[in-house]
Amino acid sequence: MKRTEVSTLGEFGLIKALTQNTTIFHSETIKGVGDDAAVMDLGDKYLVTSTDMLVEGIHFDLSYYPLKHLGYKAIAVNVSDIAAMNAKPKQVLVSLAMSNRFSVEALQELYEGMKIACQNYKVDLVGGDTTSSRSGLVLSVTVLGTVEKHKIAYRNTAQKGDIICVTGDLGGAYAGLQILEREKQVFLTNPDMQPQLEGKDFVVKRQLRPEARMDVIYELEELGIVPTSMIDISDGLASEVFHICTQSNLGAMIYEDKLPIAQETYDTAINDLNISPVTCALNGGEDYELLFTIKQEDYEKIKNHPDISTIGYTTEPDKKINLAMRAGNVIPLQAQGWQHF
Amino acid sequence: MKRTEVSTLGEFGLIKALTQNTTIFHSETIKGVGDDAAVMDLGDKYLVTSTDMLVEGIHFDLSYYPLKHLGYKAIAVNVSDIAAMNAKPKQVLVSLAMSNRFSVEALQELYEGMKIACQNYKVDLVGGDTTSSRSGLVLSVTVLGTVEKHKIAYRNTAQKGDIICVTGDLGGAYAGLQILEREKQVFLTNPDMQPQLEGKDFVVKRQLRPEARMDVIYELEELGIVPTSMIDISDGLASEVFHICTQSNLGAMIYEDKLPIAQETYDTAINDLNISPVTCALNGGEDYELLFTIKQEDYEKIKNHPDISTIGYTTEPDKKINLAMRAGNVIPLQAQGWQHF
Repeated sequence: MKRTEVSTLGEFGLIKALTQNTTIFHSETIKGVGDDAAVMDLGDKYLVTSTDMLVEGIHFDLSYYPLKHLGYKAIAVNVSDIAAMNAKPKQVLVSLAMSNRFSVEALQELYEGMKIACQNYKVDLVGGDTTSSRSGLVLSVTVLGTVEKHKIAYRNTAQKGDIICVTGDLGGAYAGLQILEREKQVFLTNPDMQPQLEGKDFVVKRQLRPEARMDVIYELEELGIVPTSMIDISDGLASEVFHICTQSNLGAMIYEDKLPIAQETYDTAINDLNISPVTCALNGGEDYELLFTIKQEDYEKIKNHPDISTIGYTTEPDKKINLAMRAGNVIPLQAQGWQHF
Repeated sequence: MKRTEVSTLGEFGLIKALTQNTTIFHSETIKGVGDDAAVMDLGDKYLVTSTDMLVEGIHFDLSYYPLKHLGYKAIAVNVSDIAAMNAKPKQVLVSLAMSNRFSVEALQELYEGMKIACQNYKVDLVGGDTTSSRSGLVLSVTVLGTVEKHKIAYRNTAQKGDIICVTGDLGGAYAGLQILEREKQVFLTNPDMQPQLEGKDFVVKRQLRPEARMDVIYELEELGIVPTSMIDISDGLASEVFHICTQSNLGAMIYEDKLPIAQETYDTAINDLNISPVTCALNGGEDYELLFTIKQEDYEKIKNHPDISTIGYTTEPDKKINLAMRAGNVIPLQAQGWQHF
């Protein structure tokens, strides 16, 4: 029998291979596979649902990831998918598989982090499943949210000439991960060494305790802005720009000098990691900021917003997706994204 | 620091320890942890949501579990939770963590089984997550369904004097599992031996390809019956009777000679496994039949139904939960359930 390795397809190719020829039976199903969340028509509103799995050894390393932070992150990254639909989270289901090395107290620590996140994002923990596993910890979180129909934001609805916006700053989570991995290697080599994390609080926190940008969703509502398209940045900015542009059948121009990069991320990339801060922003993952497009007429409303940067605009598809460098030249944007396999 | 082993609490104790002090923020949340599914108020209807995790080496053994059947089962057991709320499934999200020993073709086989189940139960596969794992396969399925408000069936709403009903037959899935495990041991001892499964199709199929009893949900609707309480039988009948009676603050009388046990299950238990068929029915798991209670006035409507057995009635709480034996004596019912930890 033919054997194709998953790694030859990558995550998106695999999803396509598995979900092709899926039949939709219910007219209430507005959107299935292919956006940050699935969409169901509730009559006066839309229900949006998303799910994420976090696997020990793949998504987190408990040698430096505190369980309380992990619990917080598990909720936050799922709420981020709801934010990416311009929706508000309502309920969350949490499933857990763990080996017997986890005590009740350790699991309570994990749930404590989840409860704090539920408090912050105003989401109800309503159910789940607990089971044992032969090895390690697996967390699966599903979140449900609702949105008024005319406010929903998809990936594939950007229009030519829209302004491309991004919240917060980029690359920090990736820089933080590299620092944590570096210190882990030092510790493994010499367990007497203390981790050197002074001055790295910012990037380490960006990795260990990401926030869903629900604050921006509420602010956009107050400003009367409905994004023409939106996605959350889990795999690096470049990958997400490709998702929006490919699915909307558009090109884009992104300006390198407009990319929001925090000073701490910049310094860590240059001084500690010897990599380009722009690479961290474009191809590092797990920032969980929002990438969205707005109509030009909405620009005035957000141009002075301290937490929203305008980084470019969408173009006709034959213009491709380009990066205008600080030096003046224009190069094709490369999307490496985060390799899950 | 204090260390409490999960095994000392069991699954239900653990869930209690983890989810206590959970805050509910939204008035739309009607039911959280503690039933087969969570419930959200949609205005004219209820949304019900449930999630289950299936872990290789814990819930299934791929040495005898075909991937297509596993995919089918993953959907069926989740739809069963929706059935247990007297609701109808609408959408399903599937998350998957797998090691690189799984090829794309193997995963397509798994999804093929899921798609057949989606077709049978008329449920839309709308999303999920795929990721790698260090070892083995983990499946997490979340299903969403809807139900008219006055038709929802909870666990904790049975009334004294209600008739206790069960669908289909019990104990078959457990007997099938024991046969499959026996043949696996024979094979491990002598790989030249062929598995002895002749005449065991019935019980083996009960284990490998369980069905959610959505057919009964549609039939109850046609009969104009709303169960006063309902639960699906995943951990053995006795355990589920305890859930309904404890949560409804009732006792019960169950009649041994009314328990529906298929001839094939009976024969396998006696001849192959040397265990009591009644023990298989009461304490074996994974039958995914429905246990429900109805008002006495509804008895006439179901008394000749070929797929519904009346097995007893509910009593005042101080009568406890009893089993009337075929021999004439009455003993307290013992709930062992299925040990997840």
